[in-house]
Amino acid sequence: MNRKRTLIALVGALLLATGAAHAADEGWPMYGHGYDNTRYSPLAQINPSNVGQLKLAFSLQLGSLRSNESSPIVIGDTMYVSTSWGPKYVYAVDARTGATKWTYQPDVPDDTLQYACCDVNNRGVTYADGKIFVGRLDGKLSAVDAATGKELWTTTVVDYKQGSVITSPPLVVRNMVITGFGGGEYGARGSLQAYDIATGKEIWKTWTVPGPGEAGNDSWKGDSWQHGGAVAWLIGSYDAKTDTVFWGTSNPGPWNTVVRSSGDGNYGKLTNLYSASTVAFDAATGKIKWWVQATPADAWDYDGVNELVLADLNVKGAKTPVYMKADRNGFFYVVNRDNGKIVSAEKYVPTTWANKIDIATGKPDEVADKRPGPGRPAKGICPNLIGGKNWQPMSFNPGTGLVYIPTNNVCMDWSVSEVNYRKGVFYLGADFPTVPGPGGYMGELVAWDPVAQKKVWGVKTDLPFNGGTLTTAGGLTFWGDLHGVFHAYDAKNGKELWKMPLGSGIGAGPISYSVNGKQYVAVVVGRTAAIPAFLGDVGKKMTEATPEGGALFVFSE
Amino acid sequence: MNRKRTLIALVGALLLATGAAHAADEGWPMYGHGYDNTRYSPLAQINPSNVGQLKLAFSLQLGSLRSNESSPIVIGDTMYVSTSWGPKYVYAVDARTGATKWTYQPDVPDDTLQYACCDVNNRGVTYADGKIFVGRLDGKLSAVDAATGKELWTTTVVDYKQGSVITSPPLVVRNMVITGFGGGEYGARGSLQAYDIATGKEIWKTWTVPGPGEAGNDSWKGDSWQHGGAVAWLIGSYDAKTDTVFWGTSNPGPWNTVVRSSGDGNYGKLTNLYSASTVAFDAATGKIKWWVQATPADAWDYDGVNELVLADLNVKGAKTPVYMKADRNGFFYVVNRDNGKIVSAEKYVPTTWANKIDIATGKPDEVADKRPGPGRPAKGICPNLIGGKNWQPMSFNPGTGLVYIPTNNVCMDWSVSEVNYRKGVFYLGADFPTVPGPGGYMGELVAWDPVAQKKVWGVKTDLPFNGGTLTTAGGLTFWGDLHGVFHAYDAKNGKELWKMPLGSGIGAGPISYSVNGKQYVAVVVGRTAAIPAFLGDVGKKMTEATPEGGALFVFSE
Repeated sequence: MNRKRTLIALVGALLLATGAAHAADEGWPMYGHGYDNTRYSPLAQINPSNVGQLKLAFSLQLGSLRSNESSPIVIGDTMYVSTSWGPKYVYAVDARTGATKWTYQPDVPDDTLQYACCDVNNRGVTYADGKIFVGRLDGKLSAVDAATGKELWTTTVVDYKQGSVITSPPLVVRNMVITGFGGGEYGARGSLQAYDIATGKEIWKTWTVPGPGEAGNDSWKGDSWQHGGAVAWLIGSYDAKTDTVFWGTSNPGPWNTVVRSSGDGNYGKLTNLYSASTVAFDAATGKIKWWVQATPADAWDYDGVNELVLADLNVKGAKTPVYMKADRNGFFYVVNRDNGKIVSAEKYVPTTWANKIDIATGKPDEVADKRPGPGRPAKGICPNLIGGKNWQPMSFNPGTGLVYIPTNNVCMDWSVSEVNYRKGVFYLGADFPTVPGPGGYMGELVAWDPVAQKKVWGVKTDLPFNGGTLTTAGGLTFWGDLHGVFHAYDAKNGKELWKMPLGSGIGAGPISYSVNGKQYVAVVVGRTAAIPAFLGDVGKKMTEATPEGGALFVFSE
Repeated sequence: MNRKRTLIALVGALLLATGAAHAADEGWPMYGHGYDNTRYSPLAQINPSNVGQLKLAFSLQLGSLRSNESSPIVIGDTMYVSTSWGPKYVYAVDARTGATKWTYQPDVPDDTLQYACCDVNNRGVTYADGKIFVGRLDGKLSAVDAATGKELWTTTVVDYKQGSVITSPPLVVRNMVITGFGGGEYGARGSLQAYDIATGKEIWKTWTVPGPGEAGNDSWKGDSWQHGGAVAWLIGSYDAKTDTVFWGTSNPGPWNTVVRSSGDGNYGKLTNLYSASTVAFDAATGKIKWWVQATPADAWDYDGVNELVLADLNVKGAKTPVYMKADRNGFFYVVNRDNGKIVSAEKYVPTTWANKIDIATGKPDEVADKRPGPGRPAKGICPNLIGGKNWQPMSFNPGTGLVYIPTNNVCMDWSVSEVNYRKGVFYLGADFPTVPGPGGYMGELVAWDPVAQKKVWGVKTDLPFNGGTLTTAGGLTFWGDLHGVFHAYDAKNGKELWKMPLGSGIGAGPISYSVNGKQYVAVVVGRTAAIPAFLGDVGKKMTEATPEGGALFVFSE
């Protein structure tokens, strides 16, 4: 062996010894896997031939029993997973063994619980530039050293005492960490805000409810824009090609339309922009490029925050850059993300409030007697306010071309009541008794063809509010349900290939990653604690299905 | 095939189809597996050749984050597992899938937490006669229909507001449910009580601190017997051959000896019977047959409740019916259980307070300067008050002849202080700073030869208060540690064959069982919540090692 060969052999041995040689290793770099939020892993080591043999690799008890909804991220051999609110907020653990590297516990006041509309929770953290960014229940945003867990900076995004908690990970674009906040049920006025990743200083802030003198302000009655909701509390996406950030906005506040629109079907211009919309922001400046409002002058709490999944679909023979959104209003939107033009929008769950969406204008063809107003209650509205899909993330598999959507089949009646704004108190003005959806089931994992806009296969369940999905190049789709059972399906045909009872309801989206050439699948369990209170008898079934919990489970071959 | 053969084939198929044909199925009928408390399973399907391939069968979130210390029991295809205190007290689940059959939640008052010396917890339930018997934190004993979870009767065993909670499963002998209660730290006066399994009516009650006129009352100074402790709060054993119930009794109250004995080494007759003892009760009448007091006039909180493991050992060529007890005082006792004569007693952990035990009299050869008294603090006392072993159960494997003991290697200093009895308040009178034990480790899984009275192998750990053990005919010993890692060892030589990080400290004893011919191994995780408060800096390490938790994990091939 000559010296060069010896050197190469030595370097090779060293790389193997340090585990650095696994060029094929694939992490889970951000909440939705990438900026496109596809929740698609290119790993194929676990596949239909061996998924039935999955073993537990490790489990981590999260130390919290509230709604645990976190998607971990994996950077190299380290996993970062958040809990609903502590006693530890974030764990950094060895992604192979679960051995704790550090924990992060900011001093979050206990009274945040009373300002969290839908229970305390945290859906995950964001990594960039050697830092972990944490949106906090107390309206703050913190940067933590990814290697040590040491807090680097903290900035106040919003006053949590107005009912604005942060429960979702921010989006990092270049030197900016971008976040919204909650509060659509408390009369917050929404905005999206960008901070310098090095210092936490604000770079830009864009209101999602236009103020006086801004375009769209005239879509609000009187001063109602001041408490207009339209908060950007969930997950953003990003397209580098156009340098555009996409974010969904919540329902307008309050739920009683008469305060902010016309209270009947003739709302005219009073559509309450940019509530219940998808908004495209220029990443560099925060300026709004365009928007698609799915539910103008929303009267049903059809919160528009659901995540935007970016893909290039072959539509009528043309490769089209789109976002896909399973809107809470029951329609699955495919929209050209370069210009905001709707490609198609079709019902993906039983939907009664509108017949169809006008593709050219985006305007729903409403069913008149489904829009409630003062003295005019409505019955049999589908979907329920939890939406055809709630926050639980869907996934898109470029191999099958299908989107895997955790859907709900629940309806409601609705009547409005007077409401006045008071800081930090629910600002609703509605009663909304729950009605089970048609067909004898209340949830369904739906594999959806976004081009043909039709269901390819589905798995029906007796409960709504089931977990997010993961799909992989191995041809698998993973999904947890509110009975606490974690399932693997053949992504093509929905055949169940494996299941594992994990003992508490699952809401979180699973993830997959590899370290040292070994593929893992991870999911957090811990059933929703507060949502059932909105759902009457259906909610009672949800809480009785499993105990509360808080645990991470990681499986491997 | 003739008709008879056809019939046999049909019956065989039917039995297979119903799963009723598994005559070899082996449950886990009571806390310690049997009346002998060996925690030995005769199952051998999981063994050194395949334990490395164990898979998760299911997990159950218990819905409670306090100290989870339960050993499940398995009757047929149903597992009954308790939680530390709710919101559900007992779960009945399918032992193969974890699917819930029923839950039981008695109305236990929240203030029980302040009367539980060492955190709220429950170590399991007892099955007999189609009923599940539940000792409750509020001092009550309940019988529940094993098929439905319906409460059948509840009786008050003790006033919990005196600091007496029930945390351990009762023992059922014939028509009697037998239980003690806690309160040795609150000046309770101990007793063992038997109730009719059908009605809950008291059958007998035996004080473990003799009152005036009773033999042994003169072993107490003045009226100190009234608050003398000696409570029987852990686990009983039973020998049908002699119809004898065996139970360990706690430390006397208060911890300051001068209140109840002489306060120095010259305690004479003032030995505080039957505290820190093993007591043999006639099952039919409750009468005390004999006792062995391990720590007369205890000055170190060497609570004597540790479980009695019954076996017939070959001692000097003679098969001898013994109980084995790893006493908190640091000595491993082998005692003839027919007559209470000590066979041998040797140190199984570093022990400094006494040199040896006199086999004929049972009296410890005390080291004078290790007995604290007024104005006479003592230093370097080993073991610590948590004992050479605490409540976490050991196991005995008749195949290897070894006992697997979760030991502690922690010491302490001790000084006494004045103390007066007040109902429901700690009755101690001592300071007891913790000192790590010698040798740079604080815990050790010890495989102990009870005949030779020596260690055969051991696994040292950096933390004390690790979990109970299980041993099997498959030649395995299972053990969880306070780092939340569950281990399997070759029972003969201590070679680690498998481990699984489960994410929260493990105290509970694992179990094994089979259903439909398949062997399972189960363990509850959820680290101790209150004990660390007694242990200073050592306690801090214990709490920092893992988050709190509450989950059942069940593994199979």
